[in-house]
Amino acid sequence: MEKFSKLSAISPLNEKSKSVLLIDQNKLPRKLTYMKCRNWEQVAVAIEHLSVRGAPAIGVAAAMGLALAALQAGDKHFDSTMQIAAARLRKTRPTAINLFWAIDRIMSIVEMDLSITEKRKKIIEEANYMRNEDIRVNKSIGENGKILFEDGDVVLTHCNTGGLATVKYGTALGVIRAAWNEGKHVEVIADETRPKLQGSRLTAFELQYDGIPVTVICDNMAGHFMAQGKIDKIIVGADRIVRTGHVFNKIGTYSVAVLAKYHGNIPFYVAAPTSTFDLEQSYDEVIIEDRDPREVYFMPGVTKRIVPKGVPVLNPAFDMTPPELITAIITERGIIYPPYEENIKKIMP
Amino acid sequence: MEKFSKLSAISPLNEKSKSVLLIDQNKLPRKLTYMKCRNWEQVAVAIEHLSVRGAPAIGVAAAMGLALAALQAGDKHFDSTMQIAAARLRKTRPTAINLFWAIDRIMSIVEMDLSITEKRKKIIEEANYMRNEDIRVNKSIGENGKILFEDGDVVLTHCNTGGLATVKYGTALGVIRAAWNEGKHVEVIADETRPKLQGSRLTAFELQYDGIPVTVICDNMAGHFMAQGKIDKIIVGADRIVRTGHVFNKIGTYSVAVLAKYHGNIPFYVAAPTSTFDLEQSYDEVIIEDRDPREVYFMPGVTKRIVPKGVPVLNPAFDMTPPELITAIITERGIIYPPYEENIKKIMP
Repeated sequence: MEKFSKLSAISPLNEKSKSVLLIDQNKLPRKLTYMKCRNWEQVAVAIEHLSVRGAPAIGVAAAMGLALAALQAGDKHFDSTMQIAAARLRKTRPTAINLFWAIDRIMSIVEMDLSITEKRKKIIEEANYMRNEDIRVNKSIGENGKILFEDGDVVLTHCNTGGLATVKYGTALGVIRAAWNEGKHVEVIADETRPKLQGSRLTAFELQYDGIPVTVICDNMAGHFMAQGKIDKIIVGADRIVRTGHVFNKIGTYSVAVLAKYHGNIPFYVAAPTSTFDLEQSYDEVIIEDRDPREVYFMPGVTKRIVPKGVPVLNPAFDMTPPELITAIITERGIIYPPYEENIKKIMP
Repeated sequence: MEKFSKLSAISPLNEKSKSVLLIDQNKLPRKLTYMKCRNWEQVAVAIEHLSVRGAPAIGVAAAMGLALAALQAGDKHFDSTMQIAAARLRKTRPTAINLFWAIDRIMSIVEMDLSITEKRKKIIEEANYMRNEDIRVNKSIGENGKILFEDGDVVLTHCNTGGLATVKYGTALGVIRAAWNEGKHVEVIADETRPKLQGSRLTAFELQYDGIPVTVICDNMAGHFMAQGKIDKIIVGADRIVRTGHVFNKIGTYSVAVLAKYHGNIPFYVAAPTSTFDLEQSYDEVIIEDRDPREVYFMPGVTKRIVPKGVPVLNPAFDMTPPELITAIITERGIIYPPYEENIKKIMP
């Protein structure tokens, strides 16, 4: 069987068919299938519905959405069409900074003093370049981070940070892949990650695909296994990292970090590309997305209600882990250790 | 609408129909329905499948199972039939001590120097007495514990410890009911409690039924809301409390206790009848039940797989919370504060 890391979650833009292929993550683990997006609206909906998710993947998908817009926009209303597409894509999800980073990067081309034909060409090139760059960046994160893991480590992870959360290879799972490929036998414990079960559905799927041992637990079991000494290290991804080193990531990350601290400082690593860093906003300015209550009312893909009708639920999609709970942040430019405010500055341009 | 606390999760033994009615908790929240158990085997299966669950309810159900055995056993093989029924019921679940406490209590009648007719009569009386006693005990726990809660408190709870986990009224939820009935407006946040969702399916159901405000969250969100200062107090039940004050309760309880400690010592209360105390075994001797992996592979009542085939899962049903994380233990005989080893001795006969 082909390695999962040979697949890619987001195809390059196909100029002939004017489309982009995305692995439909809502269909996993039951079905590995691609959805074809033919316009920016389809990409926007795919991001909103989590057909594509994971901060780096969202960024590249948005760039591809804008590339589709550039292909389709007529010469007459080119700039305004691009603005409309960008505005639509910006509204899909508020927390992952990669979305805004990618849109800004593409939209800077729209601002350039170029002909429409040149802009169109450059936007498509840039989107495809960003896609390839994401793969290169993930490989570098893996290479940089793998020294932190040893043969025999049992590593807890939360949510999905693998080939599905990126174009290919992954951030936190990329580090695990790199360690594994070097002959280190690591075992992964994957939190199932309610409500959308990215751990049980996606992380388990792609690690099993690659033959890396993975065991799924419910989110509320992590503390129990830490108390039993069964977890050596923890690695997660990030949706946004601010200049003080506060990390916004999938809901539940923070609890894992507190538990790690309590259990004798189990190393807690965050792996993310520098495109995930937000040097503008402070941690109290970041908006944490509240998602549809139906994600909690119903299990993914199932119509049987698990909460009585009329009972309210809360569904924040992310939480914030403060720097004092983080052992190191692994990026494509190297590993950042505390003090984060100082060392993030050094690594960021 | 009748208050939920007017319903009872376990009926008295009906000698005419030779049956006991149990609310089928696996059908909730979609359907409030009773299952009729006509023999001890049906009771045993109901306990194994969590149709009846919650330490106090399991104890009373087992007593009812033995009462059904006593009704059905012929005079010739009365004692041996009772032994077989007791052995079967003992094997249903290993962790909740109430099960063994209840079986021992009934079986001590079998050992008595009485005629078969007298034994049968006494066993049925005792089972019905234990059922009524459970209700009285829960009321006392509620009365004792309610002073710990104030008007306006937002109280986190885990799993279900209400009328469904007992015969009626509940332990931890009984305390909430008592506070509420005294006019204290408390709001409950219920952890959904994977894998079996006792929080979202059962706790939400019975609190909504009684008009007590309840909001459901996923288990991995509790830390986030503690960090936001949104949780004032925590109250949970127990399946077994050993002499040193170590509390065995639903998986996830321990993580909540650690998080409470980390967030400036949010009060963490345990409510349980003294029948939940085990003064014999030490905490490292208690067996934590590992349940069927299918509870994690599939959502309750749903056949769609949420973990890829072939990926292992872990499914411990309980964890252990050490005494240093517990603010107080509320029993029908009063509130126990640290040092637990000393104060448990004082309250237990």
